[in-house]
Amino acid sequence: MTQIASQFSRADVERVVRDVLTGKLNSRDQPRQPNPLVVNISARHVHLTDEHVEVLFGQGATLTPERELYQAGFFAAKETVAVVGPRRRMLPNVRVLGPCRDDSQVELAFTDGISLGIDLPVRISGDHHDTPGCVLVGPAGVVELNSGVIRAMRHVHMGPADLEYYGVSNGDKMHLRVNAAGCTTVLEELVVRASETVKLEIHIDTDEGNAVDLDNATSVELSKPCGCGCTD
Amino acid sequence: MTQIASQFSRADVERVVRDVLTGKLNSRDQPRQPNPLVVNISARHVHLTDEHVEVLFGQGATLTPERELYQAGFFAAKETVAVVGPRRRMLPNVRVLGPCRDDSQVELAFTDGISLGIDLPVRISGDHHDTPGCVLVGPAGVVELNSGVIRAMRHVHMGPADLEYYGVSNGDKMHLRVNAAGCTTVLEELVVRASETVKLEIHIDTDEGNAVDLDNATSVELSKPCGCGCTD
Repeated sequence: MTQIASQFSRADVERVVRDVLTGKLNSRDQPRQPNPLVVNISARHVHLTDEHVEVLFGQGATLTPERELYQAGFFAAKETVAVVGPRRRMLPNVRVLGPCRDDSQVELAFTDGISLGIDLPVRISGDHHDTPGCVLVGPAGVVELNSGVIRAMRHVHMGPADLEYYGVSNGDKMHLRVNAAGCTTVLEELVVRASETVKLEIHIDTDEGNAVDLDNATSVELSKPCGCGCTD
Repeated sequence: MTQIASQFSRADVERVVRDVLTGKLNSRDQPRQPNPLVVNISARHVHLTDEHVEVLFGQGATLTPERELYQAGFFAAKETVAVVGPRRRMLPNVRVLGPCRDDSQVELAFTDGISLGIDLPVRISGDHHDTPGCVLVGPAGVVELNSGVIRAMRHVHMGPADLEYYGVSNGDKMHLRVNAAGCTTVLEELVVRASETVKLEIHIDTDEGNAVDLDNATSVELSKPCGCGCTD
């Protein structure tokens, strides 16, 4: 479920017209977008520690890559776990993503949280303070997490060239407008997560993807809040 | 699942400060919001014709009100139906809303559509051109709908005083900003549905409600697009 910004969005056309009018076309002053803007929907998933992989899948077990993700070196594993919440309802097949991390983490959409009976806090990945736990069930064992169940805050991965192009820094918040028939939406508070080696990529969750109809979107626009104070 | 705008949202505070500065406080020139702004999430539901109620629930059957809705005269019925899609998957208990209408209609969220295998068009209630159908199963019979399965376009019901206050007309599109920790969102293309007797009420669907975390929102702001062209 990927939406790549159209080559000819309204914003692009406007930029070209502006460039022509100001005689800046092909000028070196006008930076070109260095990387394509990719928006991906993160379906619910689990990150595990090496230790938890062994508890859940057996002594000596490691994750088996099934599908490469857009970011190099990351993958959806063959392994899935059941996530059990306090209402003793469960999501039976939640995909594990690799490679392993220092702390296990469960990323769900609010729709999942409602079904499990977990009140999900919105957090940047890795921020587990005051987060609820859950029970993970695998074919070889059970792990009880005391924390680490979150709704991942919508975010954009950016490398140095992207940060320069958009004029933002790590931790800044941006706006993503998704233009779609009858349900155009601006997702604010899209947090910038900067890294040297990462590819430009926006992650939103399934609730957000469905609310904005990402699959049928005509264009997407990422922007720095202009600060004009309007709610347009 | 109701979110009533806080009495002291940023917009309200700004308006009061502006009023004081311009000496307009308590002036008759400055209209007060005539009605409270209520945002409700419409969960998936079905509207039926009198004829379909009889097919599904038995000859002579009528809907039994179980719970009054916010709009006077409308109700959630005791009756539910199963909605079956082309993948032969079904939603087993979809609530029927009353009173009956001239055409049956099924209103689902995209999440429901994906699960059923139905590609939902976004439509204003009652607009059934080029819409998919489905099968409804009740305790006494089955109805095959050839059309009428939609994702309801996000909308705001307004009476004459609300239209005047916001400066909009039937069919106009407005913006709803929902301020919520970590996931503030502007839902654009919120269509105005004007009626003489209706109460001011915004309807969004469950995907939208979950995407914006309506249950934990700190404030909501309804506004006419200012047209400044920014994406803020």
